[in-house]
Amino acid sequence: MSAALSVDLGSRSYPIHIGSDLLDDAALVAQSVAATQIVIITNEIVAPHYLARCRRSIDAQECYELILEDGERAKSFANFERIMGFLLERRIERSAAIVALGGGVVGDLAGFVAACYQRGIAYVQVPTTLLAQVDSAVGGKTAINHPLGKNMVGAFHQPRAVIADTATLATLPPREFSAGIAEVIKYGLIRDYPFLVWLEDQLDALLERDPVALAYAIRRSCENKAAVVAADEREGGARATLNLGHTFGHAIETGVGYGAWLHGEAVAAGTCMAARMSARMGWLSAVDVRRIERLFERARLPLEAPSDLTPARFLEIMSRDKKNVGGQIRLVLLEGLGTAVVTGSYPAAALLATLAEGAAAA
Amino acid sequence: MSAALSVDLGSRSYPIHIGSDLLDDAALVAQSVAATQIVIITNEIVAPHYLARCRRSIDAQECYELILEDGERAKSFANFERIMGFLLERRIERSAAIVALGGGVVGDLAGFVAACYQRGIAYVQVPTTLLAQVDSAVGGKTAINHPLGKNMVGAFHQPRAVIADTATLATLPPREFSAGIAEVIKYGLIRDYPFLVWLEDQLDALLERDPVALAYAIRRSCENKAAVVAADEREGGARATLNLGHTFGHAIETGVGYGAWLHGEAVAAGTCMAARMSARMGWLSAVDVRRIERLFERARLPLEAPSDLTPARFLEIMSRDKKNVGGQIRLVLLEGLGTAVVTGSYPAAALLATLAEGAAAA
Repeated sequence: MSAALSVDLGSRSYPIHIGSDLLDDAALVAQSVAATQIVIITNEIVAPHYLARCRRSIDAQECYELILEDGERAKSFANFERIMGFLLERRIERSAAIVALGGGVVGDLAGFVAACYQRGIAYVQVPTTLLAQVDSAVGGKTAINHPLGKNMVGAFHQPRAVIADTATLATLPPREFSAGIAEVIKYGLIRDYPFLVWLEDQLDALLERDPVALAYAIRRSCENKAAVVAADEREGGARATLNLGHTFGHAIETGVGYGAWLHGEAVAAGTCMAARMSARMGWLSAVDVRRIERLFERARLPLEAPSDLTPARFLEIMSRDKKNVGGQIRLVLLEGLGTAVVTGSYPAAALLATLAEGAAAA
Repeated sequence: MSAALSVDLGSRSYPIHIGSDLLDDAALVAQSVAATQIVIITNEIVAPHYLARCRRSIDAQECYELILEDGERAKSFANFERIMGFLLERRIERSAAIVALGGGVVGDLAGFVAACYQRGIAYVQVPTTLLAQVDSAVGGKTAINHPLGKNMVGAFHQPRAVIADTATLATLPPREFSAGIAEVIKYGLIRDYPFLVWLEDQLDALLERDPVALAYAIRRSCENKAAVVAADEREGGARATLNLGHTFGHAIETGVGYGAWLHGEAVAAGTCMAARMSARMGWLSAVDVRRIERLFERARLPLEAPSDLTPARFLEIMSRDKKNVGGQIRLVLLEGLGTAVVTGSYPAAALLATLAEGAAAA
């Protein structure tokens, strides 16, 4: 069922296994994790479905489980400190491995713990949401949130392997599934126009979770992600294009309070805002923008920011974005369908009009 | 005044500048820090002496100061979170640089903040204690403490430069100065026998802070540290020998509560314990042990652990050491003067006798 892709990062290269029921492939799981002490970090929603199966495939001398609360709020300093205590109490050693079983929140938090525990231990990503399988589990970005900004404290720490069991998506609520589609569409928009065309054709099958369409979309997304990460691991350049819609999106997430919007929902609205701003720059046509909006609309994703988020509040939050340089808010915009650019050079009026339009339209 | 050594780590190589009054060398400081936003992190003891001078040499568009409480307790999760808030409130960007002005505590904490803020920003070490100048400021180890163990949460994050202004040692209290000597002696013991002989000859001059002796001792220590770090940045092997006396020493620090003993004091007692255990293994002679103890004694450093730290408590804390593998406590021992080994293969009785002797002797 599995045919591994690879993220090529020299001595830190690792495989991405994609396939149905990989969680039950004890040989694969054991070979990927390979440690005498293993700590599975998951959450209360994922645990009832997949924790026992994951554990059954793990053959370790010592195996511990840590079950977190659900939602973006779990990525807190308090949980970071709490998990460190959990590991120390159990005398987890530097040779141990952490298994991040869950969505992006679990992966980001568990990955950051792995990055910092005793200055870094191994971890394996076992993403169980579409968003994590196509995006957050791949590439080694880990983080926790600060009340003043999402993912503001973190590390680049590559996993030892990614095991994306597509069968786990069967239990994913429709809203979460749609949120993952937002990141899938992203790859088409920033660097893979043929994939964008495929998505326009196959979106309905994808939303029905047709196994063939789903497997293809996940693999193609991971191929795109792996290529970008291999070329620019620490986001010195091209990797920033993966943040299409994220500068607006993070502001939405921070502005409404973590968890009120799903990350993928905020990215969807943020990407539509980036598209409309790109049109104001003369880079996209009205038809292009409509094509983008139509895709998100079909995926039942929001096209606009919440109306109570004022332009002033947007700017305040966006002024803390990690991409900013010299106080200038840098944005990922589209020069065309399939071509993204990271830029701080745009008329302030274009940004303000985009923000105001969002507030007015909703 | 300055002649830079170098820590050779490919694209992450950096200079160590050692000399008197380097803090006033605005060209050197500016070139080392080189950022439009700079945050100086220091503490209440160091600030009155050196903050203004440091700041005067910094020519940045924006320069902020953050003054922490003194002592090992500052390396807390609470301060880690607080500093992140400080940086976010001031909209510090990824292109900014942190200046760690102070001893090992400031350097470890500020370095860990730099490692994690927005997944990593630049920092410069400006060590103002002997211990930091000869050891902790070089090599990129950063960390905070957990109640269950010292330095248990951290990162490898190399500074952009180290500026060791030897004139700052003039204000160092004698107890702190002695604590730094412990790490100087360490280099002689683990890999530089000629330096050990030099120390036996020059220790009195060093304790009187004779500028020539001091400059030589700092440079030679940094040369040793740089060579070890260049060969094994992430402590896969030889770097662990730098922890001579630290497994016992960390247990003392954790056991008595952070701050009751200075780190160097705990390392001194821990090194004497490691020496006595090495003698039990038949690796050192009684004369060798006495030479080692005599050096620490002349430096006014403790040779024994506190008597109220029982062997059971020692073992409990040591069982969480980062070097441990397979539940086995790994120790740095001496095969001879100038030759260290990291091993988990020793008779348990030798360790127990060493711990019991410490408890009884004090």
